[in-house]
Amino acid sequence: MGKVGILGATGYTGLELVKLLVNHPKMEIAYLGSNTHKGKRVSEVFPFLEPFEVGKLQFEDYENIPPDVELLFLALPHEVSMEIAPRLLEKGYKVVDLSGAYRFKNLEDFKTFYGFEHKYPDLLEEAVYGLPELFREEVKKARLVANPGCYPTATLLALYPLLREASDLILDDVIVVHALSGVSGAGRGLKQHFHFPEMANNMFPYKVVGHRHIPEMEFVANRVSPKGWKVRFTPTVVPIDRGMISTVYVRSKKFDIASLYREVYKDEFFVRVVDQPPKSKEVANTNFAFVYPAYDERTETAVVVCAIDNLLKGASGQALQNANLMLGYDEGEGLKHLVPSIV
Amino acid sequence: MGKVGILGATGYTGLELVKLLVNHPKMEIAYLGSNTHKGKRVSEVFPFLEPFEVGKLQFEDYENIPPDVELLFLALPHEVSMEIAPRLLEKGYKVVDLSGAYRFKNLEDFKTFYGFEHKYPDLLEEAVYGLPELFREEVKKARLVANPGCYPTATLLALYPLLREASDLILDDVIVVHALSGVSGAGRGLKQHFHFPEMANNMFPYKVVGHRHIPEMEFVANRVSPKGWKVRFTPTVVPIDRGMISTVYVRSKKFDIASLYREVYKDEFFVRVVDQPPKSKEVANTNFAFVYPAYDERTETAVVVCAIDNLLKGASGQALQNANLMLGYDEGEGLKHLVPSIV
Amino acid sequence: MGKVGILGATGYTGLELVKLLVNHPKMEIAYLGSNTHKGKRVSEVFPFLEPFEVGKLQFEDYENIPPDVELLFLALPHEVSMEIAPRLLEKGYKVVDLSGAYRFKNLEDFKTFYGFEHKYPDLLEEAVYGLPELFREEVKKARLVANPGCYPTATLLALYPLLREASDLILDDVIVVHALSGVSGAGRGLKQHFHFPEMANNMFPYKVVGHRHIPEMEFVANRVSPKGWKVRFTPTVVPIDRGMISTVYVRSKKFDIASLYREVYKDEFFVRVVDQPPKSKEVANTNFAFVYPAYDERTETAVVVCAIDNLLKGASGQALQNANLMLGYDEGEGLKHLVPSIV
Amino acid sequence: MGKVGILGATGYTGLELVKLLVNHPKMEIAYLGSNTHKGKRVSEVFPFLEPFEVGKLQFEDYENIPPDVELLFLALPHEVSMEIAPRLLEKGYKVVDLSGAYRFKNLEDFKTFYGFEHKYPDLLEEAVYGLPELFREEVKKARLVANPGCYPTATLLALYPLLREASDLILDDVIVVHALSGVSGAGRGLKQHFHFPEMANNMFPYKVVGHRHIPEMEFVANRVSPKGWKVRFTPTVVPIDRGMISTVYVRSKKFDIASLYREVYKDEFFVRVVDQPPKSKEVANTNFAFVYPAYDERTETAVVVCAIDNLLKGASGQALQNANLMLGYDEGEGLKHLVPSIV
Repeated sequence: MGKVGILGATGYTGLELVKLLVNHPKMEIAYLGSNTHKGKRVSEVFPFLEPFEVGKLQFEDYENIPPDVELLFLALPHEVSMEIAPRLLEKGYKVVDLSGAYRFKNLEDFKTFYGFEHKYPDLLEEAVYGLPELFREEVKKARLVANPGCYPTATLLALYPLLREASDLILDDVIVVHALSGVSGAGRGLKQHFHFPEMANNMFPYKVVGHRHIPEMEFVANRVSPKGWKVRFTPTVVPIDRGMISTVYVRSKKFDIASLYREVYKDEFFVRVVDQPPKSKEVANTNFAFVYPAYDERTETAVVVCAIDNLLKGASGQALQNANLMLGYDEGEGLKHLVPSIV
Repeated sequence: MGKVGILGATGYTGLELVKLLVNHPKMEIAYLGSNTHKGKRVSEVFPFLEPFEVGKLQFEDYENIPPDVELLFLALPHEVSMEIAPRLLEKGYKVVDLSGAYRFKNLEDFKTFYGFEHKYPDLLEEAVYGLPELFREEVKKARLVANPGCYPTATLLALYPLLREASDLILDDVIVVHALSGVSGAGRGLKQHFHFPEMANNMFPYKVVGHRHIPEMEFVANRVSPKGWKVRFTPTVVPIDRGMISTVYVRSKKFDIASLYREVYKDEFFVRVVDQPPKSKEVANTNFAFVYPAYDERTETAVVVCAIDNLLKGASGQALQNANLMLGYDEGEGLKHLVPSIV
Repeated sequence: MGKVGILGATGYTGLELVKLLVNHPKMEIAYLGSNTHKGKRVSEVFPFLEPFEVGKLQFEDYENIPPDVELLFLALPHEVSMEIAPRLLEKGYKVVDLSGAYRFKNLEDFKTFYGFEHKYPDLLEEAVYGLPELFREEVKKARLVANPGCYPTATLLALYPLLREASDLILDDVIVVHALSGVSGAGRGLKQHFHFPEMANNMFPYKVVGHRHIPEMEFVANRVSPKGWKVRFTPTVVPIDRGMISTVYVRSKKFDIASLYREVYKDEFFVRVVDQPPKSKEVANTNFAFVYPAYDERTETAVVVCAIDNLLKGASGQALQNANLMLGYDEGEGLKHLVPSIV
Repeated sequence: MGKVGILGATGYTGLELVKLLVNHPKMEIAYLGSNTHKGKRVSEVFPFLEPFEVGKLQFEDYENIPPDVELLFLALPHEVSMEIAPRLLEKGYKVVDLSGAYRFKNLEDFKTFYGFEHKYPDLLEEAVYGLPELFREEVKKARLVANPGCYPTATLLALYPLLREASDLILDDVIVVHALSGVSGAGRGLKQHFHFPEMANNMFPYKVVGHRHIPEMEFVANRVSPKGWKVRFTPTVVPIDRGMISTVYVRSKKFDIASLYREVYKDEFFVRVVDQPPKSKEVANTNFAFVYPAYDERTETAVVVCAIDNLLKGASGQALQNANLMLGYDEGEGLKHLVPSIV
């Protein structure tokens, strides 16, 4: 059993990792870090985990990680991740970082979109963007994987075949992306507008200009096809606990979009090309991405919809997919059994 | 008191009209038509209306409308409305039609988008599109008002100032519209995917290519500014009962979008230009449209968000606004008192 | 226009009062107190109120209430209300207190259930319990009305006819009350378990033993019929924004419960005896209470269900009903027009 | 691999069984019966099952069950189950019946509560009530297991320790049960009041007198402790997709209820005695029952709360637990890995 640890184990992504690892046939949780809850047993904070082995483990502060741990998941704030990642790598741990700290290379963008100066440009250069369907071979060899954001995951999976195989047909370098997210995407921290009585039966766009996930989307889009793509991105929060749907609009000449998408993704277990617009619940509680490609002749626009679970394929599921690759396991271990929830 | 009637009084838009008219200081319900429930008292079908005067009224079939009725609201299927409207006009009633039967002029589009042939091209030509903020003077004089669809209302209110005042700045004739709707927009008819256990905690786009509201949006956009605009439209259903948010994307040169929008709508009571992206709940149960204009320099795109209640400003509230104008009352009668619901 | 004020105007019950008073034909808001937001205009805190006159008013701290204000609504924490009520009465204002500070008479119960010592036993004695359907004449003459809690309102309206007219048939002095509440009943303050992602699609009982509303229910039940009734009460929170259903179980001999309830409530506008178990949405956004009485022969039990909107008939609506009575207006002013929301 | 089949595989409980069996290490789906969808591949009806082996299977009508199938799950209407069960047993299949057709023994109660005459009293006598925590040894040897209803499962698990070990302390033979259920408990069939726009943000009790699960609860309660218990039962539907909470009220003398419950359930994996009132989401998507026992001295009442997932421990999970026992597998196979969902 490969030993792994989680730093920031009591946020939503940390908790999802715990829930996944409980059933992982090849990995074992050897360390759970939480500054907020250190010293408590896991089942004190999450009583529903008591039936599982992990329930008896204890949260610890971010020190004293056992030396036989092979890989650490960082479910921490961006700046904390930026600081802590190099130290962990130095000690010989592999790292999957779920924050935004190592997702793109442009230092200027960290200032503009994240508001801090990145201190480790070399490590930034080394970090591998952990979207396995795009960069699987790199992930296998990586010491540090930057786990993609939820919006970029859904968006890039929607764009990838088009950018890779049909970028010559594209008529405009601006890609419009309109995405919807369940509220868990905003994390576990309390905010007035996410207080249940106000968020129930409600929905709203936010950060209409300048959302943090933009540089990440543009960086990867241009790595796939270096033509100066710009992303025009609007996120919207809807009253569901988990789930995400991203719709991308690309002005392009006509082509057989369905065939292209089926071809590109034909060997991917977790990315499925579907015949009908996907429902978020069809992928909730799984690591699947359902991709629906369409072409609108009237407006010469390729429209692609991608649905994922923002906490799984959009965060912790993908982190585990990456960890599997980094430790030499089958990519789907601990993930393939997850059956979509419908009711 | 002006006497009015409703045909199709037991669907969602019919019911909303009843609820509004109960409190209207100048109108009185003199006729409630329902083929499904004819012969029943209103309070048999809707027990919660018993405390109100209307509770004792009876549903009737679509004949025998009292001659002193001045205006009829048609909350009927498209083809039924198409057939019945000319006959009602002939008898001298004014008509506000909530269906799509008289909303645009192009006969071909009826075949393509609605699947039927329009039999009354002359009346189609005469019908006035009932978006009062755009066509108030025409509405006042109209015999037949085609009440706009919910998506077109939110979308056109988002586009209007830009198209009317700044169309020279627009860089592309394709307008991307991504809209979200509460489930009531699909009406009262039962469908498997709207069964509560399946729709709860779920969301999905539908009719990604070729939605029926497209010709209506394009017709009005080109009436405002006849430059061959095309609308690239995606509707998405989200798990709320009522509410709608439409986001429009228009590639354009830079301009002071906030000032323009505030200027154009400065005298409108029901259309409010706001400083933050609106929440659907801020306008739910009211006739308001909250419009949030933004300009994204990075992508040279004007992004405008409009939130409405799909059943009120998107249907029955606007129908009453039109009826007020047609009968010479203040446009806001029976509507202005509606306070937004937040919790 | 009678001038009124609200202390604690930015919590949920304060906001509901503002929304109701905006449409009140005989009252006018002359003062809005908020320690948290003093100095801000109402529309800064609640932008959706901008279209209404009140949007331009300013929140002030709890001093400097204009002397021509006739009545004050206290939407404050229990202990703050206890302290402030006598001072306001001294200055000649009438007071409707929405907290629990003056709802029952037993000093010991304040210690046990609220955790503080009541300092003003005389005023406690004077305070009138503001359930108009039970104590209308007292309310009319009161200086200080203690507005009932939401659970007690629904529960006591379900019990009242039985206790008043058929207490001889009751076989057990313990009354079981199981009530469900929307999350707004817990107020506007943030809590982890009310964070949307956790409360969505969730429900749970709380305070299974010893909830604060018990002494209030027992006090009033025994005032109606002084036989030592005890209330066994369980509150449950369900994922809706507003709404409340209380179900009461009283072991009793057989009697015609429907006729009794119809008779007792026959002249009440806001309390309606219904033929089917009420849905919370049938009374949401109104001041109605729908009461469904049933008798179960198998177990010799009277079962009565009462549905209200916890923020209206369960709080601010009833507060206004009381204020109407105290100022000599028709009890239903500003409340009767509220039409139930269904979709 | 033990071969099993499902009759009625496209309803909610059938679908849940499919989803569970996909991951069962010892069982394999060898037959999927559906009259509605016969001839279609599973993934045509449920596209989200395509990634799983079962996606390629075909639905068949209720004939031609392969002879090597060992056990059949019946997810059928009550009367269909009653008719078909004896025929399947005759052919040598073991049967777990998820309907109400074989859950209790009293023939009269079938007429009263289910509205049909039971034709197979002998088989009724033989059928074992499949609540493993109460009747594990009988289940192991059974040919026909009547899988409990969802309300009876939650209610009986709440009552069992009290009835078995402390019935002498009970002061009243009437047990009050107030239960809340997610909407999936009503099945997949469409109904107006479960149409999303009407059920969203809504809740209501139903069948306040005479619900079908009463005879089942009373039969088992009196088998555990034959003292003539009567159940006073109210079901309430709340706007969640899955989840159930039953609260039972038993007038009794004081005793150490927490210790008793912990003792009785100490060896049960799926029944957990908890320190705080359980939340439905803590057990959703699992086979757990969380039981919270409390004693209220003021009213001399034992109050016990039990939370389950109505589709799992309340239906298909329990059915699989029973099937495991009947086929000689570990009771928790295919169920123990299910981790509670929280966000």
